[in-house]
Amino acid sequence: MVAAAVKWVGGVDGFLGLIDQRQLPGEFVKLQCRDIEQLYEAIKTLTVRGAPAIGVAGAYGLVLAVQKLDTQCSIRDALECLKKAADYLGSSRPTGANLFRAMDRIKSKAEDFVASKAKANLQELQELVLNEANAIYQEDVDMCRQIGENGEKFIKDGVGILTHCNAGALATAGQGTALSIMFEAHKKGKRFKVYVDETRPLLQGARLTAWELKQAGINVVVICDNMAGWLMKQGKINSVITGADRIAANGDAANKIGTYSLSILAREHGISFYLAAPSSTFDLSIKSGDQIPIEQRPSDEVRFLGKEKITPDGVEIYNPAFDITPAENITAIISEKGTIQQPTEEKIRRMLGQKLWQEKTGKI
Amino acid sequence: MVAAAVKWVGGVDGFLGLIDQRQLPGEFVKLQCRDIEQLYEAIKTLTVRGAPAIGVAGAYGLVLAVQKLDTQCSIRDALECLKKAADYLGSSRPTGANLFRAMDRIKSKAEDFVASKAKANLQELQELVLNEANAIYQEDVDMCRQIGENGEKFIKDGVGILTHCNAGALATAGQGTALSIMFEAHKKGKRFKVYVDETRPLLQGARLTAWELKQAGINVVVICDNMAGWLMKQGKINSVITGADRIAANGDAANKIGTYSLSILAREHGISFYLAAPSSTFDLSIKSGDQIPIEQRPSDEVRFLGKEKITPDGVEIYNPAFDITPAENITAIISEKGTIQQPTEEKIRRMLGQKLWQEKTGKI
Repeated sequence: MVAAAVKWVGGVDGFLGLIDQRQLPGEFVKLQCRDIEQLYEAIKTLTVRGAPAIGVAGAYGLVLAVQKLDTQCSIRDALECLKKAADYLGSSRPTGANLFRAMDRIKSKAEDFVASKAKANLQELQELVLNEANAIYQEDVDMCRQIGENGEKFIKDGVGILTHCNAGALATAGQGTALSIMFEAHKKGKRFKVYVDETRPLLQGARLTAWELKQAGINVVVICDNMAGWLMKQGKINSVITGADRIAANGDAANKIGTYSLSILAREHGISFYLAAPSSTFDLSIKSGDQIPIEQRPSDEVRFLGKEKITPDGVEIYNPAFDITPAENITAIISEKGTIQQPTEEKIRRMLGQKLWQEKTGKI
Repeated sequence: MVAAAVKWVGGVDGFLGLIDQRQLPGEFVKLQCRDIEQLYEAIKTLTVRGAPAIGVAGAYGLVLAVQKLDTQCSIRDALECLKKAADYLGSSRPTGANLFRAMDRIKSKAEDFVASKAKANLQELQELVLNEANAIYQEDVDMCRQIGENGEKFIKDGVGILTHCNAGALATAGQGTALSIMFEAHKKGKRFKVYVDETRPLLQGARLTAWELKQAGINVVVICDNMAGWLMKQGKINSVITGADRIAANGDAANKIGTYSLSILAREHGISFYLAAPSSTFDLSIKSGDQIPIEQRPSDEVRFLGKEKITPDGVEIYNPAFDITPAENITAIISEKGTIQQPTEEKIRRMLGQKLWQEKTGKI
């Protein structure tokens, strides 16, 4: 059983169920999100996190935006209200590509509907928005499961796996990406041990990934990030499996800071290095990793542990959110559309399909 | 100006001045240690830490043990009291090689003195113990400065240096080992930037090394351990300089967990990797790193940040204190006796001197 990070409960007049991820692993608290202000706060404060999960949450946010409209409200006004809600929710996480993509999809569905139907009524619009949000949700669930099914063959019985950060159910609507592979292998009765980097500064590994794996009954060991190489040296790690945030046309991949070092250490020790990511992670407009901008996060994430300041006053902090793993260090990328071993632009293009390739690049 | 982690103040009736390292970098608190019970607690609770600093503290502990003896106390009883104090202080840190070495040296000096002099009096014994403790202190100070002088040539103007854990003044009686090199380069007017790994789980880098470098007016940037590889990739690091806890005959070196990974990452990026350590760190009775036992530290060091538990209940933790960097990854070992580039057993033996080599191995 994996956690349901984002789940709509009921019909058009239902609510969005969230897990309060800020309180994990200490407490497991479920929230009922009933208006867009509450959802804005939840996204902003990382109560709900992970690009796919935020995308799905945003989609349901638009259901919340229209569900309470007065039955007298005109269909044009309802559409306007939906667009305003999308702008508002989008400002909670301005760099969240999945969030904008999901809400744009619903907006354009709603616009088409209103334009095409002379006598569209509010209730029909509300149902359309819910149906589309449910579709986005279901696609995410299916995508996660498919990544797991595609990747589970890489986990052999008795192995040790290393993972970094959280690419699990808590980051998606389904059962995650990297962790989905482990959940599927576990379902097939394979026994294995997962070493989880705690993942400084925000500790998503220690807090969230360890919690998810433990819930699923998978053997889990938490380590500090600086211990991974020494584990590899001792032969305790057979493969590294992580998620990815953005993959360039040549296969270079941005993921949580620390992933690049792991890819070097894995190669040095002859260990397979897998990235698990939905096909929507590929950005073919970006030629190589050099062109992926790296977000610098606030210094206080490193400077403070809880309320305690751990560095002297006035000392500079360097806190990049991501790093870039070069394609040559990646054994395979596992997506819902298939697996690419030793990724190259040619192979990525083939997997995504010529049509998608054309759409994304404008090339023939 | 570097911090005086361990400094005797006054004559035979003086006290041992310590810096309370548990309170750094938040507060700079000086302690006056006036009896062996207080010193035992200080060592046990890591108020004073670092093998050389603890060795010097133990030596002065024996001064504290005999300074308050009644003038009527017989010289034999005083000697007995000194031995008991050494046993007691030794139990505060049973694996502290420097602690035992320093106290053994004083005990044996005191025994020789009592045996050789028919009418030795208590005051003479007290002075002998203080003189020997002062000699141990001074040797440590000289050793540190000499390592700095031997190593500063490896720091060029304008470079970026990475260090891990704390091999500074706070770990010795003098100005440290790895940091001594930086202090000497700084004294010569070289400008450089030091990136400091925070060094999970106990954060000696973020807390202590950053504090020392800042105090000295050296440019310092704190990073999380998992960021080092990405900094190297971007060309921001020209060399890695760390301490070492124990070095085998072939040059394999035990140091704080994480050092091994740094050595791999440095090699991958063509970056020099230096270890700074006193000659007493070499243990020629150990053929290679395989034979160095690795201490496992308590899980709670990883499990808790301050009072907050960051991992789910019941999850296993792996927390080795050290790892082993193979000699082939080490560009040079810098000791007070000289510098060994690309260390081999032959070169180490030559530097330590045939005599010492014979003493330590029993070989001719």
